[in-house]
Amino acid sequence: MNTKREPSGEDKLIERFFKPLAQHPGALALSDDAAYLSPPAGRDLVLTTDMTVADVHFFPDDPPETIGRKALRVNLSDLAAKGAEPIGALLAISFSGEIDEGWVANFSRGLGEDCAAFACPLLGGDTTKTPGPLSISITAIGKVPSGKMVKRAGAKAGDLVVVSGTIGDAALALEMKKRFLSGGLGDLSKPQVAELTRRYRVPEPRMALAPLLREYANAAMDVSDGLVGDLAKLARVSGVSAKIEAARIPLSNPVHDAIAAEAVLLDVALTGGDDYEVLCAVPERHFRAFAEAAGKAGVPVTAIGAFEAGEGVSVLGPGGQELSFENGSYSHF
Amino acid sequence: MNTKREPSGEDKLIERFFKPLAQHPGALALSDDAAYLSPPAGRDLVLTTDMTVADVHFFPDDPPETIGRKALRVNLSDLAAKGAEPIGALLAISFSGEIDEGWVANFSRGLGEDCAAFACPLLGGDTTKTPGPLSISITAIGKVPSGKMVKRAGAKAGDLVVVSGTIGDAALALEMKKRFLSGGLGDLSKPQVAELTRRYRVPEPRMALAPLLREYANAAMDVSDGLVGDLAKLARVSGVSAKIEAARIPLSNPVHDAIAAEAVLLDVALTGGDDYEVLCAVPERHFRAFAEAAGKAGVPVTAIGAFEAGEGVSVLGPGGQELSFENGSYSHF
Repeated sequence: MNTKREPSGEDKLIERFFKPLAQHPGALALSDDAAYLSPPAGRDLVLTTDMTVADVHFFPDDPPETIGRKALRVNLSDLAAKGAEPIGALLAISFSGEIDEGWVANFSRGLGEDCAAFACPLLGGDTTKTPGPLSISITAIGKVPSGKMVKRAGAKAGDLVVVSGTIGDAALALEMKKRFLSGGLGDLSKPQVAELTRRYRVPEPRMALAPLLREYANAAMDVSDGLVGDLAKLARVSGVSAKIEAARIPLSNPVHDAIAAEAVLLDVALTGGDDYEVLCAVPERHFRAFAEAAGKAGVPVTAIGAFEAGEGVSVLGPGGQELSFENGSYSHF
Repeated sequence: MNTKREPSGEDKLIERFFKPLAQHPGALALSDDAAYLSPPAGRDLVLTTDMTVADVHFFPDDPPETIGRKALRVNLSDLAAKGAEPIGALLAISFSGEIDEGWVANFSRGLGEDCAAFACPLLGGDTTKTPGPLSISITAIGKVPSGKMVKRAGAKAGDLVVVSGTIGDAALALEMKKRFLSGGLGDLSKPQVAELTRRYRVPEPRMALAPLLREYANAAMDVSDGLVGDLAKLARVSGVSAKIEAARIPLSNPVHDAIAAEAVLLDVALTGGDDYEVLCAVPERHFRAFAEAAGKAGVPVTAIGAFEAGEGVSVLGPGGQELSFENGSYSHF
């Protein structure tokens, strides 16, 4: 008997749902063990990896298309903060229990739409099963002009502390979900609730800022583990301190309303995770040009304080008093 | 109060156990969100990713240093089969339950020794927690002269089917473990048992073959999901068939003895996973030079059959009869 082996279930799944995302010629339509990439001349590659796990980074009952989008976007957010444009991504995914093809179809549709929208095709991957929760590990590869990756270490005393977008939306979405049985967050309207949920599920990587950060910023990172804690990390590795004013921190309308109703939520907004905004150090003389260019590119940026000599982070309240926080940063351990 | 935030438990873990592995300058000592890499001129990059999960790809009670080694080596095996030399790797790891620092110390020691031995420094990573089993996702990056990655698709009718090393050791180690309570595999000696176990836990990526594959092979892949099934994949994507002879398949001494005692174990050896040997298509006129060069580099290679026109894979038994197999290949689904 000549054995005409049919593709396995695993191969069929890849063929059907993931091959359409592998538009890069070096991905070889996912039919090989590896991808190749001819690096663009005069560019450095920028490499980042993030693992997202059900029950830790997303809710298992989140819509599968948003789970796919978020897994890619948290990596794109790192690239943007480093001043990099995407080249492609590798996906390793371990499925929990029986494969639900409808779930995979929606997951890969969301992921694929974002691969296309952000010009970040799938280069390769690995699929496996796990007795545990669904886990998704994405490695994203980007490019910057040689030597121009924007680092975390680099903030100088006198630089302004600048953030993009608004802070705390995703953290309040989580808080809202935690309090679901006890009635949510005060009197937020349905559209406000929807807005916070959207921000938690589908963060907006600030790709438009990438070239501007290379031009104007001394240091940058993305805010993924809470503004205060991430600012402390950036300041520590740069050898400076930072002082910011709570009143200047940009808040969305739902976060503003929630804090107005319950002041303690400011703590949640400034130390919760999942903002995926850019935090950067911009010399004061460049701030105006940076802010104008960012605004034109559709991303508002706000100066919320300054870096100084010394160490640590201070957050000043409305009366100039220093606020203290239970937890500076989200840590998994 | 000025908040001098201390590094979190997560940051301390990275600092203590993983930073020493990040010897590449672009890794920025793991203090940044991403790594940079100035690509070597005249080279393509080769990218591969593999996720290994406790209870699926290794036993949770395997020695942690071998778990670290294997997670890297399965990726290095892919690079070798593609003709690539390693540049570096990114590690995403999700820890299960409370962090056991002794475990992490041994895991990172094993991983670090292999990073050094294979000149594949850690470029970056991500650590998180999971309510499920330990999961390790590694993305390895290698290099080949431009346009020279050895692909799966490329075997031609007339090429010899060639494998490195010996086949079935890891599969029989697994079988042995499965049968532990019923007495293991026949009369294997203690050193034979130890040898099979070592092959399962710490596969040997065939890096020395990388330049020889570029020179002599029309197609190659690594055998990770069973020889017969992986050969079928290579033949299918190349548009040819393959005929191999069971008697020519190279077996280690313990596998030979186990099959001699129990013939059905041949099926396990040829269709089980985790060999991490190279399977390649070599034109007949090149085989002698390839085998000599491989032998000099310390890796024995064996011709076990030939590719032909048509489709499918045939395995001929000692009397020339075709053997059939329950499962051609390991598939997770």
